[in-house]
Amino acid sequence: MRSILTSSISPVWHPPAPCTVRTRPLDTRAGPGQIASTLPQVSTEPPTQHLVLALSCPDRPGIVHAVSGVLAEHGGNITESQQFGDPSTGLFFMRVQVETAAPRHELEGALTSLAHDFAMEFALDEVGRPVRTLIMASKDAHCLSDLLFRQRSQRLPIDPVGVVANHPDLEPLAEFYGVPFHHIPVTQESKPAAEAELLGLVRDLDVELVVLARYMQILSDTVCTELAGNVINIHHSFLPSFKGARPYAQAHGRGVKLIGATAHYVTADLDEGPIIEQDVERVTHADDVAEMVARGQDVERRVLARAVRWHAEHRVLVDGQRTVVFP
Amino acid sequence: MRSILTSSISPVWHPPAPCTVRTRPLDTRAGPGQIASTLPQVSTEPPTQHLVLALSCPDRPGIVHAVSGVLAEHGGNITESQQFGDPSTGLFFMRVQVETAAPRHELEGALTSLAHDFAMEFALDEVGRPVRTLIMASKDAHCLSDLLFRQRSQRLPIDPVGVVANHPDLEPLAEFYGVPFHHIPVTQESKPAAEAELLGLVRDLDVELVVLARYMQILSDTVCTELAGNVINIHHSFLPSFKGARPYAQAHGRGVKLIGATAHYVTADLDEGPIIEQDVERVTHADDVAEMVARGQDVERRVLARAVRWHAEHRVLVDGQRTVVFP
Amino acid sequence: MRSILTSSISPVWHPPAPCTVRTRPLDTRAGPGQIASTLPQVSTEPPTQHLVLALSCPDRPGIVHAVSGVLAEHGGNITESQQFGDPSTGLFFMRVQVETAAPRHELEGALTSLAHDFAMEFALDEVGRPVRTLIMASKDAHCLSDLLFRQRSQRLPIDPVGVVANHPDLEPLAEFYGVPFHHIPVTQESKPAAEAELLGLVRDLDVELVVLARYMQILSDTVCTELAGNVINIHHSFLPSFKGARPYAQAHGRGVKLIGATAHYVTADLDEGPIIEQDVERVTHADDVAEMVARGQDVERRVLARAVRWHAEHRVLVDGQRTVVFP
Amino acid sequence: MRSILTSSISPVWHPPAPCTVRTRPLDTRAGPGQIASTLPQVSTEPPTQHLVLALSCPDRPGIVHAVSGVLAEHGGNITESQQFGDPSTGLFFMRVQVETAAPRHELEGALTSLAHDFAMEFALDEVGRPVRTLIMASKDAHCLSDLLFRQRSQRLPIDPVGVVANHPDLEPLAEFYGVPFHHIPVTQESKPAAEAELLGLVRDLDVELVVLARYMQILSDTVCTELAGNVINIHHSFLPSFKGARPYAQAHGRGVKLIGATAHYVTADLDEGPIIEQDVERVTHADDVAEMVARGQDVERRVLARAVRWHAEHRVLVDGQRTVVFP
Repeated sequence: MRSILTSSISPVWHPPAPCTVRTRPLDTRAGPGQIASTLPQVSTEPPTQHLVLALSCPDRPGIVHAVSGVLAEHGGNITESQQFGDPSTGLFFMRVQVETAAPRHELEGALTSLAHDFAMEFALDEVGRPVRTLIMASKDAHCLSDLLFRQRSQRLPIDPVGVVANHPDLEPLAEFYGVPFHHIPVTQESKPAAEAELLGLVRDLDVELVVLARYMQILSDTVCTELAGNVINIHHSFLPSFKGARPYAQAHGRGVKLIGATAHYVTADLDEGPIIEQDVERVTHADDVAEMVARGQDVERRVLARAVRWHAEHRVLVDGQRTVVFP
Repeated sequence: MRSILTSSISPVWHPPAPCTVRTRPLDTRAGPGQIASTLPQVSTEPPTQHLVLALSCPDRPGIVHAVSGVLAEHGGNITESQQFGDPSTGLFFMRVQVETAAPRHELEGALTSLAHDFAMEFALDEVGRPVRTLIMASKDAHCLSDLLFRQRSQRLPIDPVGVVANHPDLEPLAEFYGVPFHHIPVTQESKPAAEAELLGLVRDLDVELVVLARYMQILSDTVCTELAGNVINIHHSFLPSFKGARPYAQAHGRGVKLIGATAHYVTADLDEGPIIEQDVERVTHADDVAEMVARGQDVERRVLARAVRWHAEHRVLVDGQRTVVFP
Repeated sequence: MRSILTSSISPVWHPPAPCTVRTRPLDTRAGPGQIASTLPQVSTEPPTQHLVLALSCPDRPGIVHAVSGVLAEHGGNITESQQFGDPSTGLFFMRVQVETAAPRHELEGALTSLAHDFAMEFALDEVGRPVRTLIMASKDAHCLSDLLFRQRSQRLPIDPVGVVANHPDLEPLAEFYGVPFHHIPVTQESKPAAEAELLGLVRDLDVELVVLARYMQILSDTVCTELAGNVINIHHSFLPSFKGARPYAQAHGRGVKLIGATAHYVTADLDEGPIIEQDVERVTHADDVAEMVARGQDVERRVLARAVRWHAEHRVLVDGQRTVVFP
Repeated sequence: MRSILTSSISPVWHPPAPCTVRTRPLDTRAGPGQIASTLPQVSTEPPTQHLVLALSCPDRPGIVHAVSGVLAEHGGNITESQQFGDPSTGLFFMRVQVETAAPRHELEGALTSLAHDFAMEFALDEVGRPVRTLIMASKDAHCLSDLLFRQRSQRLPIDPVGVVANHPDLEPLAEFYGVPFHHIPVTQESKPAAEAELLGLVRDLDVELVVLARYMQILSDTVCTELAGNVINIHHSFLPSFKGARPYAQAHGRGVKLIGATAHYVTADLDEGPIIEQDVERVTHADDVAEMVARGQDVERRVLARAVRWHAEHRVLVDGQRTVVFP
């Protein structure tokens, strides 16, 4: 399995923006099972896999027919599918779940050939495969706790391979859930070394997704670019709104009746990456700043969990400054 | 154009439940334009149409490929598409919007042939074509007023060909929007005659959709069956919940904190037809029954408008006792 | 009855911001009924009135006791009441509904005396009395139509005494609801004359509330100041967010997943007046700008109707740059 | 401090339903601080306490005046207050937060005297004092985890004195949060002994509130009656709706578009106690039963946390079969 760091090497056609769609090689973890599937089988029915294919390419007639043709040739049965052509960017997006008994590498080969013809980016993955995820946090526990609980209760398809924090406070929480905790403090001087350590972890742990779960440090442009399309942040407010420090105090001062949160991909342009999900919580005049923070935490963890789930299920495709979400 | 009354004649394969998918013949209203399109044209680029295709059939491999093949052969470019295979009923559902310059009748012919092979029901229509709609009401104006306003402000693709009411109160409202008003009183004795008059209107006005916008009479089984799949009702409560008279008084007595509404297809089993849409409105202890009725009206009109829009845009497909909605 | 224009004359203690609380004189429209109440009555039980009292003053111990004392002395029975002391502004707010058989002018006199002691602003009104309202619009009908429908269906306690528009398009709608329509076009040159005509209408029609129901002209500072605290605007977006032209296009470009609306009091600082209510509607990547506008209209009319209702029921009290809402 | 078991001894006037309002004696935990407050103080300003008073009584004129009089006599400054008179039950409800430097026992004495005159039930408590809470669960962790996390992150004013479960699965979670875990298995034979053990814990741990956080055993009428008004349950569906086993499977079968949860007080009439809070989550045709369960868990934990918070803050008052909630 390749980490997200190596994903910048391959593509024939470079997408117009950070993109979640990537070709994944054979899952070698399965090992014996894969070998077994190449041996003669007593059963006449080969084992069925449930795969998800996500792709994007310049829009033109015939894409769905070509893709579904490849799937049909490999005995694929489509169980769920969504497509969208964006007139404003001229791009076409497709996500399809398919059951097939064909060897995965054959399907992959056929799709690679197709991708060449259509200048297509694609990702092929098993439905429900946990995505290797590194969670970054600071002191606030609400997002980290929620993600780990949801993973453990079997509903969030991530494999949390590590927690990175610039403060030690959250180590017990990570330990409770059995996730290795890496304390990487960040000062102005140590930032380059800290980021090198982070990128080392991403490489060594074969990380596919980085989630900024209220991580209060700004990633450098270098890191943002290197991990582009694979870092999700939760922003403590609607976007664009109340920029700067103490957003809840600003919201309180203006007497807002709703507070919100935004999950988005991280780009070098902070807080301006493609939006994945947003939601709000109602507040009243009687809620002071502390209560607005508390309600904000509720909506932050809810929005982040949805965004992470959709990303992990290949339901989010980047479309320039926007995202296409097939929920 | 055929009205919904005649739709019971044709299908080769009978769907397991009231179904919105029907083949529509050529739209003859356009008249001259249609004729013109058969004449030699100076322009080398034939005019592009934007069509919507909705279909359902028993699930099996190759459906999407076959359908997209037909579309590709006719130069179709898919702009939006959704599919869903329901494991519990074994049915497959698809809605696709396609731009094509091919003559519609040719596409229709090819689809009809395909439908035969796949035991498929389908509807082919122009994107945004207003559906000929008869709205039925009693005395409450909120749903009727909302539908007519939304139609007029160009966002709801219905053509309101008539309003039928068993009370005269709403005539001025219908008149303001220029919709013919038919006062058909209903008593126990007159009910058969009244329903005959209703079915006559459906036939004469070439009605495709009947909306029960707080119509307080119960349609007979005969009418329900004859119009099955083409009648949408708005129910003044969640389903199943608070059956019987005065639902808001019951909700008040139990001190509920939310009240809701349900839009559903009408079947002979009253209030038990497939659910299209539901929503809620928050209430408090300070809201008396009258206020709960008022808030209920808000959520009723909102839910009904969504259901009518989705039906008119061929976004609702019936799946046994459930609906598949591609919003 | 005095119009809002004259409300700048009286108060002893000037509130820190536009304020909805005003003393209302005896309602002389009732005429004969008022006279009758001064005559000897056969019934030993005087007729009960349901009154609402809204007040604000600098916070200090004893306010509730003093106010409830005055009410108790006049045989008042409190049916609903809410109070709030804002630590950030040092102001106290109270809204109370009371049933009493005492002559209203006596209660008013006692409250006036109390108001002097506590540097208090207050409004005393009948529960449910329709507030004389002037609605201003341009071409978009959704907010005007919704307000007039809600008024007519007896749930919104306003008396729409006129519609002012700078375009003629909405005249039929106003006529249908029997509300006088005033076409006052506005050009750069005619603006002073147009605003003079507007203020003349406010005076002549004894207007208590002006609602900007998608009125696309900016009111001058003079008008804003003169009508301060009595003008409600609906803003086509969250505040602060997407300032400038074509907010829905901006929202689409950023790929937002929610769009919102904000109802607020108008101050000279445009779009920055105290917020009364906000809400959102969910959108997806498939919604183009036109659909986002349509959904925006839904949330706009809903938010505006709530704000107008709460204002008309004396449920909104201004607290500096914020509002206290007792819903 | 008295546990909820002893609360059935005292009241002069018995409320018409389980009631959250109780007189609380002086908090003796503070110990030294309380003694210190009786000593001569150098400061001329006695320390200010922030108290909450919740009460209900038969409605009649003068209640607010009498209560605010007692508060004013003790130098109290009202910071937040809400009242409601329910015409359908003839009861009056009041919740008030007050800052005062008066000794609490003096205020308590004065209120007790007042309560006698008005046949009033009341509770006087410190604002924010953690309520001693016993949480009961079975195997599902989502509600327990959420409550403990919210308590720890300092926003939920409960003191979780123990977790009782009829299965051992949740012990590690309770241990992580440092809460004693009591495994009390329940079989048909052992139920009386198990309930005796439960009531023993309630007594020994001085429990004020029992939360059924997806506890899958039915409490006997005896326990329900003994703890009446102090047990909150979360119901896995709207009420009344989809009674019986596997509610999410029923909801899926009917194709509902929303699923909900209800938090309510437990009475002997299972699932029919006064409703405290309800909310919903949207689902689609693509969500299978497992996903509906997952979404249901989200809404369950959210609704339960709100209900527990409001109860702990004395914001919920029982009004016959309904609740008055002052949020």
